[in-house]
Amino acid sequence: MPDSAPDKSRIWTAALLVIGDEILSGRTHDKNIAQVASWLQVQGIRLKEVRVVADDMDAIVEAVNILRARSDYLFTTGGIGPTHDDITVDAVSAAMGLDVIIHPEARAILEAYYETRGGVNDARLRMARTPDGASLIPNRYSGAPGIRIENVFLMAGVPNITAGMLDALTGTLEGGAPVLSETVGCWVGESEVADLLRECEQAHEGVQIGSYPFFREGQVGANFVVRATDPDLLASCVHALCEGLGEQGRTFTPGGI
Amino acid sequence: MPDSAPDKSRIWTAALLVIGDEILSGRTHDKNIAQVASWLQVQGIRLKEVRVVADDMDAIVEAVNILRARSDYLFTTGGIGPTHDDITVDAVSAAMGLDVIIHPEARAILEAYYETRGGVNDARLRMARTPDGASLIPNRYSGAPGIRIENVFLMAGVPNITAGMLDALTGTLEGGAPVLSETVGCWVGESEVADLLRECEQAHEGVQIGSYPFFREGQVGANFVVRATDPDLLASCVHALCEGLGEQGRTFTPGGI
Repeated sequence: MPDSAPDKSRIWTAALLVIGDEILSGRTHDKNIAQVASWLQVQGIRLKEVRVVADDMDAIVEAVNILRARSDYLFTTGGIGPTHDDITVDAVSAAMGLDVIIHPEARAILEAYYETRGGVNDARLRMARTPDGASLIPNRYSGAPGIRIENVFLMAGVPNITAGMLDALTGTLEGGAPVLSETVGCWVGESEVADLLRECEQAHEGVQIGSYPFFREGQVGANFVVRATDPDLLASCVHALCEGLGEQGRTFTPGGI
Repeated sequence: MPDSAPDKSRIWTAALLVIGDEILSGRTHDKNIAQVASWLQVQGIRLKEVRVVADDMDAIVEAVNILRARSDYLFTTGGIGPTHDDITVDAVSAAMGLDVIIHPEARAILEAYYETRGGVNDARLRMARTPDGASLIPNRYSGAPGIRIENVFLMAGVPNITAGMLDALTGTLEGGAPVLSETVGCWVGESEVADLLRECEQAHEGVQIGSYPFFREGQVGANFVVRATDPDLLASCVHALCEGLGEQGRTFTPGGI
């Protein structure tokens, strides 16, 4: 194997920083955590940590510097619009010790986008500001681009615009083997099979089993989600789990309930 | 005014730690951030920061120790069930240097709850474990209680159980003046009125104005949310904002669009 062959066992990690008073006040229900998490799974990148902070310079700077250092990638959502409370570019630049510039390509994109929409004014031009040295993430919905600087990706807060930016990034980031998962559903209280779950996980190193209880149609049940990067290991653990449930006389549903 | 009168200008703060692999994998869409955030507003407590971490001892311990030190209250959701991946009690106890005990009152609650449901087994008894010195938060849905230890509140991950625990805590925590808010909606691109928003906020110290753009019925618009603890200051800022919008010939809708 040549030295340059990718190491599939390397685990790539990401953090997400959600920026916005509206999430912390409860006014807006965040939708970006789930969509970024799902997207990262497909890229073979593990979301290790999420933080939500206010539109506050110190809070953003602190989180950016910690999170970008300890994950391979840091994504942010929110705070890149045209108003006074949009301070993500300033905060990320401050965190990284970079100047804020008007990005010529972003300016051209905004001038074209607003040509038939009243033209670019000072507020709109704020959305062309980036840390010095940044590249752009296309925004196919509303002109103003996302921003990449080193391993940090600044995206919009509005979920469908964020989705478009994620779509533009699909396949462009190096990742590892994606985490595979299989679900086994069972009409059982999770506390009745807790020993079996623990034993199955311990017998298959590299596998995690999550237990997600529910209460439906007047009955308790749970979905057991088995996760691993190795498909054989995953299949072996799922097999052991199903066999164990069968031995206990439980009825289970591969694929989940 | 006697010395013991509550200081209404004191700002009470909270942090929320969401614990669970299922949120970071994108499998489960978190609903607890929004409901805890909204509930805290009513208690007069400001949610300053949220973190989401995996079912991982080191990650939970680190977050608990940072967050409980820098906010008045720390709430956690998730990881207090009966299975092997439920390690919140162990992690919080480790973070605080406390032993884990079987809480006699919690044990009695579980014994009563499971009396007609197959009895208490080892897994179910896990849900009676608390840090030494804890008190309990009632759970009116499914027996197993939440836990309070010092300024840390451990709650369930399942949103309707969390809601019941929040309900049980309502009115029991000291808070400050609640943050009041008024919304003004306007069919305008936020970038067209960015100067006005900034000027209104600057002219009213203690007020924050958030701008939340939307695209509906083929038109751009935005809701401007004005927040303050002082009702007169809030009214004055809303008045100035509406006047400014009127002077620009904008049509606006008090209460929001």
